[in-house]
Amino acid sequence: MDGPEGLFEPLFISDEMDPIVSAHNWVQKMVDVECAIARAQGELGVIPADAANEISRLASTHGLDPTELGRKARDGATPVIPLVQILTDKLPETARPWIHYGATSQDILDTATMLVVKDAIRLIAQDILEIGNLLGLLAERYRLTPMVARTLFQHALPSTFGLKAANWLGGVVSASTSLERFFRNELVVQFGGAGGTLAALDDRGVLVGERVASLLGLSFPAMPWHTQRIRIAELGGALALIVGAVAKIANDIVLAGQAEIGELSESQGLGGGSSALPQKVNPVGSILVNACFRRVQGFLPVLYGCLIAENERGAGGWQAEWPTLRDLISTAETSTKRSAMTLRHLVVDEAAMLRNLELGRGNVMAERVLLRLSEGMGRSAAHELVRDATRRSTKNQSSLIHELNQEAVFRESLSDDERIELFNPLSYLGSAQIFIDNALSQWQSASAGWNIIAGGV
Amino acid sequence: MDGPEGLFEPLFISDEMDPIVSAHNWVQKMVDVECAIARAQGELGVIPADAANEISRLASTHGLDPTELGRKARDGATPVIPLVQILTDKLPETARPWIHYGATSQDILDTATMLVVKDAIRLIAQDILEIGNLLGLLAERYRLTPMVARTLFQHALPSTFGLKAANWLGGVVSASTSLERFFRNELVVQFGGAGGTLAALDDRGVLVGERVASLLGLSFPAMPWHTQRIRIAELGGALALIVGAVAKIANDIVLAGQAEIGELSESQGLGGGSSALPQKVNPVGSILVNACFRRVQGFLPVLYGCLIAENERGAGGWQAEWPTLRDLISTAETSTKRSAMTLRHLVVDEAAMLRNLELGRGNVMAERVLLRLSEGMGRSAAHELVRDATRRSTKNQSSLIHELNQEAVFRESLSDDERIELFNPLSYLGSAQIFIDNALSQWQSASAGWNIIAGGV
Amino acid sequence: MDGPEGLFEPLFISDEMDPIVSAHNWVQKMVDVECAIARAQGELGVIPADAANEISRLASTHGLDPTELGRKARDGATPVIPLVQILTDKLPETARPWIHYGATSQDILDTATMLVVKDAIRLIAQDILEIGNLLGLLAERYRLTPMVARTLFQHALPSTFGLKAANWLGGVVSASTSLERFFRNELVVQFGGAGGTLAALDDRGVLVGERVASLLGLSFPAMPWHTQRIRIAELGGALALIVGAVAKIANDIVLAGQAEIGELSESQGLGGGSSALPQKVNPVGSILVNACFRRVQGFLPVLYGCLIAENERGAGGWQAEWPTLRDLISTAETSTKRSAMTLRHLVVDEAAMLRNLELGRGNVMAERVLLRLSEGMGRSAAHELVRDATRRSTKNQSSLIHELNQEAVFRESLSDDERIELFNPLSYLGSAQIFIDNALSQWQSASAGWNIIAGGV
Amino acid sequence: MDGPEGLFEPLFISDEMDPIVSAHNWVQKMVDVECAIARAQGELGVIPADAANEISRLASTHGLDPTELGRKARDGATPVIPLVQILTDKLPETARPWIHYGATSQDILDTATMLVVKDAIRLIAQDILEIGNLLGLLAERYRLTPMVARTLFQHALPSTFGLKAANWLGGVVSASTSLERFFRNELVVQFGGAGGTLAALDDRGVLVGERVASLLGLSFPAMPWHTQRIRIAELGGALALIVGAVAKIANDIVLAGQAEIGELSESQGLGGGSSALPQKVNPVGSILVNACFRRVQGFLPVLYGCLIAENERGAGGWQAEWPTLRDLISTAETSTKRSAMTLRHLVVDEAAMLRNLELGRGNVMAERVLLRLSEGMGRSAAHELVRDATRRSTKNQSSLIHELNQEAVFRESLSDDERIELFNPLSYLGSAQIFIDNALSQWQSASAGWNIIAGGV
Repeated sequence: MDGPEGLFEPLFISDEMDPIVSAHNWVQKMVDVECAIARAQGELGVIPADAANEISRLASTHGLDPTELGRKARDGATPVIPLVQILTDKLPETARPWIHYGATSQDILDTATMLVVKDAIRLIAQDILEIGNLLGLLAERYRLTPMVARTLFQHALPSTFGLKAANWLGGVVSASTSLERFFRNELVVQFGGAGGTLAALDDRGVLVGERVASLLGLSFPAMPWHTQRIRIAELGGALALIVGAVAKIANDIVLAGQAEIGELSESQGLGGGSSALPQKVNPVGSILVNACFRRVQGFLPVLYGCLIAENERGAGGWQAEWPTLRDLISTAETSTKRSAMTLRHLVVDEAAMLRNLELGRGNVMAERVLLRLSEGMGRSAAHELVRDATRRSTKNQSSLIHELNQEAVFRESLSDDERIELFNPLSYLGSAQIFIDNALSQWQSASAGWNIIAGGV
Repeated sequence: MDGPEGLFEPLFISDEMDPIVSAHNWVQKMVDVECAIARAQGELGVIPADAANEISRLASTHGLDPTELGRKARDGATPVIPLVQILTDKLPETARPWIHYGATSQDILDTATMLVVKDAIRLIAQDILEIGNLLGLLAERYRLTPMVARTLFQHALPSTFGLKAANWLGGVVSASTSLERFFRNELVVQFGGAGGTLAALDDRGVLVGERVASLLGLSFPAMPWHTQRIRIAELGGALALIVGAVAKIANDIVLAGQAEIGELSESQGLGGGSSALPQKVNPVGSILVNACFRRVQGFLPVLYGCLIAENERGAGGWQAEWPTLRDLISTAETSTKRSAMTLRHLVVDEAAMLRNLELGRGNVMAERVLLRLSEGMGRSAAHELVRDATRRSTKNQSSLIHELNQEAVFRESLSDDERIELFNPLSYLGSAQIFIDNALSQWQSASAGWNIIAGGV
Repeated sequence: MDGPEGLFEPLFISDEMDPIVSAHNWVQKMVDVECAIARAQGELGVIPADAANEISRLASTHGLDPTELGRKARDGATPVIPLVQILTDKLPETARPWIHYGATSQDILDTATMLVVKDAIRLIAQDILEIGNLLGLLAERYRLTPMVARTLFQHALPSTFGLKAANWLGGVVSASTSLERFFRNELVVQFGGAGGTLAALDDRGVLVGERVASLLGLSFPAMPWHTQRIRIAELGGALALIVGAVAKIANDIVLAGQAEIGELSESQGLGGGSSALPQKVNPVGSILVNACFRRVQGFLPVLYGCLIAENERGAGGWQAEWPTLRDLISTAETSTKRSAMTLRHLVVDEAAMLRNLELGRGNVMAERVLLRLSEGMGRSAAHELVRDATRRSTKNQSSLIHELNQEAVFRESLSDDERIELFNPLSYLGSAQIFIDNALSQWQSASAGWNIIAGGV
Repeated sequence: MDGPEGLFEPLFISDEMDPIVSAHNWVQKMVDVECAIARAQGELGVIPADAANEISRLASTHGLDPTELGRKARDGATPVIPLVQILTDKLPETARPWIHYGATSQDILDTATMLVVKDAIRLIAQDILEIGNLLGLLAERYRLTPMVARTLFQHALPSTFGLKAANWLGGVVSASTSLERFFRNELVVQFGGAGGTLAALDDRGVLVGERVASLLGLSFPAMPWHTQRIRIAELGGALALIVGAVAKIANDIVLAGQAEIGELSESQGLGGGSSALPQKVNPVGSILVNACFRRVQGFLPVLYGCLIAENERGAGGWQAEWPTLRDLISTAETSTKRSAMTLRHLVVDEAAMLRNLELGRGNVMAERVLLRLSEGMGRSAAHELVRDATRRSTKNQSSLIHELNQEAVFRESLSDDERIELFNPLSYLGSAQIFIDNALSQWQSASAGWNIIAGGV
């Protein structure tokens, strides 16, 4: 069966991510690493060529049971010990001494993790590309669609939905920079042997390591990182930024989709039903993105806490990293996938945006009035005058212009036309269009990098 | 196959916990809840008796695929919608309207969670009992075995291994109080219907709920808790305390097992091998407890963050709770199980303890000397004199008594016998025996409660 | 000056909490502990009565500079070393050896912390009492005020504002149970001496400790808890539950106060202005509660992480606890104080609640229609019929009853009166009134306990 | 008074960091931002030149009380409202309308934060430089000093202390990359006005913003980031990586300083005393670094949680960021400062390293023996043979070579010289020297960047 198994897993692991983070694939990657080491060592004459060939053939080994490895890992706190045992048993006698030669558990598992991570980032790259492109379209299409900007959940000023989308896009671009950098620089093999010296390989350790890296499509780092867990924590942080950026979008969509607001909604065709209430169309995609976001907060202190790997190997921290990073990767990708899906089908109600903008009967233009009046009467007095007028407007359910017209200073210092123009939201958007252009332009650059990464899948 | 599946899962889910937190069991508990609701409603005449009977028969339904529910949950952010659909399809036409009558997704899933939690706590109770009993034996047996107390990783004063074990025991007792209270008071059904009013059941909602609770072996709370997520966070906190208490033990064992210290070790028969190093016997049990401890830190902010459930249902928070609580439960139980196993086979090297105690050539008795000298010469002067003597002792690799004997005030104010007795660790244990007795006595009370809980498994 | 100093501190420390958690008070409590130890030891003949008297007089010492202690603490990772030095210098020569006799840094600081915590909980008790009483009034007064229940940010069913307030109240009661238990059982002295044995006090350690506890108004625990940090983490968890319960209220208020919803607002007299926008009245109290809630999530993993105190004293963990617990205490109390203030001035707009309830043109009654129709036509068919009608109603901006009347099965199976009554929200509240009564009754019990605690301030 | 005030603050805020993160400085930076805005607007003719001049003069305003701003911030959830009021009052009537023109609270506070952050990173740069240089010296000096590599707290293989220091250095280099990138790219002004559009500045908003950035020594971003909180979380993550890297060093030092190990110690001149125990020399610097590390874990979920800033301004999240980021910055710098101080005075006991390496009587060479024997007899058989020999060696307290000599296959397959050379640790260091060279070379590159950053202080 395709896709993740379990009751809760499908909510946090996509069908596309499952084959990457699955136990089977992780085991396969570990086997791939053992094979690459043997192949490199065979080429460099560290082990017999025949043995290297025999070991390389294990790469297509079928039937390795991850659960068996996992259960045996209880004995040694690593699944690599039973893996090496099982693989050894599959080899002819002569090849047996040469598998895992000079390597340690952490070389195999950490490097396998990097291979998993590489494919995972490529998958996330596809989501980021789709999200960025969709947000770019929204920013362009709705760049002049009036909408109220809300600060602290209150109406603040006129804006446009295009600018909101551009802000979302800017967040995604900014958040994904770290992951892109990680992909370019930090996908490296771990290769240090049992003590981090590659002692068993004499002076050929680095040569072997470089060849292993090349065979696996990874880079070779300046030194083993068995107790420099920076990369793992850094990857966690980079993913968490992206989850945060799409969770911000999801949260805004949920808020804009409340019955009384009704500006944005997830398409009805995407599910969102209720077990009891037939009329409900819940913003399911955004809710699940929010769930991903919440889980991710908790993974961070674990990964950053493991930076303190003791002596030459983390005692407990290393083990804690495994499920944490795996769950973080898949949760992150679920959040981007659901975000892309939501944006693809987002329903925008421009009429509702306009209706809400006008809900305050002009109060949303109060800053503009304030600034205009401040010129003549000073800011404090103007602030007081405008604030009082807005409160009367709220109390009397009247328009702000009506209340202001009660004030001689307002009536007399401005012409009729000036007073009306003061309340035109379309002429009070400042640099919104420039910011939209900047976001689109930033995305154009960023998407080039993500296209390259995604192309490799 | 028995036990958890996957590569990493077996390290964090025990074979005993797996059938409790497994997807199959969680689904079964959800079915049980639906059946209990129908049965209660049938008994109270809310739904036809025949329909109630038909629905009750679903309890023994086989072949419900959790993964199918999980995948369909992607549409509605809850697996209960597809569950009800599938169960409905299994019913005769006449019974179909009456399943899930007046209930909502959250009633089913939250109540099923409570059933899972109940069994999980019972299992943990067994571990706690074993840990407590083993620590009690250690405290009793080694109550007079001299050992150095170490503060900030430095030798401080003489103590005994029995007191160390009693401290561990006191921690376990203290840490497990919250969970015991939770078991007694907080295992309740969630039953509120789609809006938290039980509207569909008219004035019989509470009667039905009380009967459901009774059928399921849970209590009925004062009101629905669909947005009062206190219990979930509180349970997380209670489990985290226990994990902390056993992680403290594990950490101390790892430290005491360092080659140069060698006071405690995990039995060789329990695994602990290395993929590269044949001589290694790693403290695997304690390392895995540490890994559990690290993971648990991260689950807490997630669960406590979900307390802010919006309006009448958490939008994302509720979903984030599911895997987080499940992983927390199983990780917690793994930590207690491994702790019990480690303690059961703990190897105590009394000779090493004595050797280390004497390592400082009497420096560990410096406080006693200080207090004795303070009486005559004042604390400050005495502190200076003793500190200088300890530093000379360290520098010269001489005994502290030798260095002190250089000082006239020491030589002259104390008799020979007094000076020698000052350095007898066995006579400088203060209230250690009382504290050991207190810990044992506390455990006797606490274990009675845990026996009752564990007995129900 | 009264109140906390600093730019950000006043937002997270109330004027009432400041004298409790201030550096000056913490130092005073440390002095109090030293004095109580001396007094107890004097009474029991452990130290000379004259010395005890001299030391006791230090309790009213003025001019101890916390900053001086803090800076000197950099040398020894504890402020108690310089404290003892400074206090010693204030004593006559004969009393000097007898201060801090047989004690260790941790005895002083941990016990002082407990004294601070005791006063802090008493202050929080006042807030809890006010919050509970205010919520009780709201629950009572608005028990029949119709309001829509919202799940996943969508309209679900009719409810009342009184039930919403009762739910908030139930959350506060449930959340505060742990803290009340802590106050009753866990306010204890720490007294173990440098190695946790009270070695320096021979066989009188426990007697001294019990007397110290009695003098300070604390309990004496079964054993020292220098490395059983359960209490600290447990206190953190207990406070976090309460913060969560009031943050849930705050969040609901913010959501209900959105311009388009307008059901609840913080009173205009309480501030809430904007630096730029004169018309804004921000829900400032609730926003600050939310800020407290967010900070608290982060304190938890720190405190629970410190459970792993190494050997006989946490090396780093103990130090990390200090500011974390202090900030957690004051942040928690700020959240309850602001919650009480917000509720005291909460403006309830019943008309807006009714208007919003009717916004869906009857869709909010869909469950009731569904249940009624299910009886005749089966749940699946009824679900489909009603869901389609609600979607047409949304699309056509028509009422749900209008769309349902298009369906023969609806028209024909129900009388006119029945069809109209189906849409009366006031008759579809289920057990709401019982739940309100239960919450009020729970609060009556709980408040008795909190009154006792608060009374002691 | 110089340095931070309070009881706990001096442990987590250095005297050098205090003037940067102090409330006074934060207020000064806010004033600087207001002045820069006015100056830029004056230059560009947005506001009268005279007014701009008057406002600019406020930069040297004395006597602004941060606490007053903090207390007034309780009314509006921002200290900028009272700040603007106070500054306005200091201006002549004609200039008053023009201060804070077109700006919003968040523009002022976020930009001030960036100015604080800039200076803070420069200070941290000095620490990083010192740490890196000291580690480079250690790596070079001790590159051939034999030391045991320990994995999972057990002896694994021979290594050198120089390699350990090189690993520490590699971690610091790797961990500090993100912060260096942040300094170069992300120190930007926030400038968006009340709704993120700069509406009040018509089409001159970007021009003003660019000029403000230039005046303040910051960059101008593509768009306002009032709800793109990526930078703040990213900064938190970057700092946490560095804290992790130095905490790893600190932890290793504490472990190596245990009485029974004695390889490394913090110099006695640096404090480390005890209130009760005159003989103790605690590793205080490393313990405080550990305390910093623990606190930092908890700041991360807060900052990453604030990524979900609602609509056009975070409601609570923004406020939670302030103290969290401030505490994170100062805690991070304390950790680097204490790490530098510890390394500067680190005492290395080469004899102890050698003694410990030999403690296992040759067991640490078991891998080498295993590999050698595997060539002839296969890995499994060799692993069994060697493992059994190591266990006998442990049991009999004999040397491994003695036990191996009991085995014919060992005796016969190797010459006497070969067997002796097998146990020479100095000839079994693999690529250690290359890794050391690589770390030194990496540091040479990295330090160039940090020198530039630090130079600006």
